Amino acid sequence: MTHAPLPGPIDPPARLLMGPGPISAYPSVLRAMSAPLVGQYDPFMTATMNETQELYRGVWATDNDATVLVDGTSRAGIEAALVSLVRPGERVLVPVFGRFGHLLAEIAERAMAEVHTIEAEWGQVFTVAAIEEAIVRVRPHVLAIVQGDTSTTMNQPLDELGAICARHGVLFYTDATASLGGNDFEADAWGLDVATAGLQKCLGGPSGSSPITLSPRAVDVVASRKKIEAGIREDGDPEAADFVRSNYLDLGQILDYWGPRRLNHHTEATSMLYGARECARLLLAEGRAAVVERHRLAGAAMLAGVQAAGLTVFGDVAHKMNNVVAVEIPDGVPGDAARGALLDDFGVEIGTSFGPLHGRVWRIGTMGYNARQDAVLTTLAALDVVLHRFGATVRPGEGVAAAADVYRSA
Amino acid sequence: MTHAPLPGPIDPPARLLMGPGPISAYPSVLRAMSAPLVGQYDPFMTATMNETQELYRGVWATDNDATVLVDGTSRAGIEAALVSLVRPGERVLVPVFGRFGHLLAEIAERAMAEVHTIEAEWGQVFTVAAIEEAIVRVRPHVLAIVQGDTSTTMNQPLDELGAICARHGVLFYTDATASLGGNDFEADAWGLDVATAGLQKCLGGPSGSSPITLSPRAVDVVASRKKIEAGIREDGDPEAADFVRSNYLDLGQILDYWGPRRLNHHTEATSMLYGARECARLLLAEGRAAVVERHRLAGAAMLAGVQAAGLTVFGDVAHKMNNVVAVEIPDGVPGDAARGALLDDFGVEIGTSFGPLHGRVWRIGTMGYNARQDAVLTTLAALDVVLHRFGATVRPGEGVAAAADVYRSA
Repeated sequence: MTHAPLPGPIDPPARLLMGPGPISAYPSVLRAMSAPLVGQYDPFMTATMNETQELYRGVWATDNDATVLVDGTSRAGIEAALVSLVRPGERVLVPVFGRFGHLLAEIAERAMAEVHTIEAEWGQVFTVAAIEEAIVRVRPHVLAIVQGDTSTTMNQPLDELGAICARHGVLFYTDATASLGGNDFEADAWGLDVATAGLQKCLGGPSGSSPITLSPRAVDVVASRKKIEAGIREDGDPEAADFVRSNYLDLGQILDYWGPRRLNHHTEATSMLYGARECARLLLAEGRAAVVERHRLAGAAMLAGVQAAGLTVFGDVAHKMNNVVAVEIPDGVPGDAARGALLDDFGVEIGTSFGPLHGRVWRIGTMGYNARQDAVLTTLAALDVVLHRFGATVRPGEGVAAAADVYRSA
Repeated sequence: MTHAPLPGPIDPPARLLMGPGPISAYPSVLRAMSAPLVGQYDPFMTATMNETQELYRGVWATDNDATVLVDGTSRAGIEAALVSLVRPGERVLVPVFGRFGHLLAEIAERAMAEVHTIEAEWGQVFTVAAIEEAIVRVRPHVLAIVQGDTSTTMNQPLDELGAICARHGVLFYTDATASLGGNDFEADAWGLDVATAGLQKCLGGPSGSSPITLSPRAVDVVASRKKIEAGIREDGDPEAADFVRSNYLDLGQILDYWGPRRLNHHTEATSMLYGARECARLLLAEGRAAVVERHRLAGAAMLAGVQAAGLTVFGDVAHKMNNVVAVEIPDGVPGDAARGALLDDFGVEIGTSFGPLHGRVWRIGTMGYNARQDAVLTTLAALDVVLHRFGATVRPGEGVAAAADVYRSA
């Protein structure tokens, strides 16, 4: 074993993260990450867990008791939801309108669900009628749909789906990783049974913790499959025959760990808990509606800016998330080289794309801490310079001016 | 929805964490946790991932290319290992000598393995012969065993098991969460195929990231089951029929994300990566052998201290981990009240116990940052006071004196 000389302490370069996420965290979230640790059952720890649950009830707009964090990135939350709700062979309906719809289907398939998909063209959302028609046809146990799919920037309207799911006896699950905090979200008012997210988008934290909330109906499903793990199981503890085929992502055990019984499961990721708590605290301190409005304004300014600069926006703008816009890469501009110049010369990061859009569009985000005027204007100014350098026809200064106008007239 | 008034920024009380883990993190690890974020494919990010892989090769004492982090707590690493290595119906042999052996068996069972266990009395380890006998009888695909089980404080000798596994065509997997960094560990020299850990014990970081290393033989098994997920799969990508039934914990995909192809999977938990990197960097800067020696010395001092104070040590002291000792709660002392007094009056945390030892023993750790003389002496001095208060016969000052002697004569 030969090893390179030891590196020094971590010392990241200055970056303005204006891609589809992860984005630059709020400074106070970073400060929270470095707070000293306490023990797993320290009264301060359990109080902080309870407090964090209550904060996320505010973020989700829910009264759900079962509002916790899954210790992993957003897809850990997705997998925890699907593997805990869906028994092998049960039907799951996934309306797919971008990459993350495919991900929900993929995770449900691995959980041995019978997966049915319907697909919308990239850049479009589904009508309520199209989803209801599929529910009637498939009769799924769970409807699983993302709210915002960063791959296309689309924001699927969810507000009418809960009533439809309730009418048809379907559990209604959405992943709001890309959208939560930057767009309206009402877990209870929209009739959601399960919702999951991550910190690294509009919540303004690092990836690695997945907020999740479950309705009493969803908790009943999870509880019916409960199996307390060997090593801590006591006489009389449940051991369902159709227990969840994951230990780490078994919501039955995760809820018992967060609940009054405090049954040992994983060792809660304390620093991520601190960070997640601060993300929610900041959001509620600013106000849920005010944070969405800040994202709406930043998104409107960025949209006006890229359009005024002469760039073509991808997808159905009427259904775009507030926090991300996709623009077509101008003819002749090498997409990756231009993104590299933005990063190297300005420290500004914008995003590339997946699947059918790869090489065709850039994605520019305005999320969390970076849903700010100076971040929007700096990004547009840097983009001006880089587009000009690569010979794209640009209208110098017009993007910045248009974005500034949006802020001025707000 | 009525919500309590918003709390302030996180502000944990001062704690000296001397339980079986999590323990107080190294200050520089906490500082690393608050470093600014960069994008997922920023050259600094990918370089940091590569650097962290190389640092962990040093920690594990391995040349394994497949040395990465799983984004979750230590049991996420355990589940990733078992679910990725073991096909449903394959046999797994788990020698159980404490709670965490039960956990390995439980996770393997959920992964639909045919699980065989052998059990040692709590407080003992297995002889090599007992494990080989079981291997010959069961003919497992995988031998899964913890190195150190904090529930009993035992440290199972592993150095002869690799050769036995190789002779019988068995994959050799160990979970070293509780032991790594505080006790000898040699992934390559001991013939390990897979090893997993967490940061929250002797590595001196927060829970939430699980270092893992896989031998080329283990990588072959994982690769044979590879399925690139829907949404990013390209023509010609593999899609094994017996793919792993988890997406999040599928090591095939996790290795592709860390490998040269950098295939998008989860969004790496950047702050946890920074923390994990610093844990490894500190360990290698101090020197692998020196860190183990520091733990040996702290453990010897704590052992001498509790014995001199008149407490009875639980289990086979010859096979105790360096970093934790279990002591019987003296007759008449209310175990939880005494632990509460230590925490309330001195800010010192020691641990309770699981299963058959619950209410019978306390567990006292000397790990990572807290494997220090002042931490050992402070804990013993506080314990003196609390034992006296609860009427236990104590020999005032003798515990502290004995521990100080161990340090003085080192």
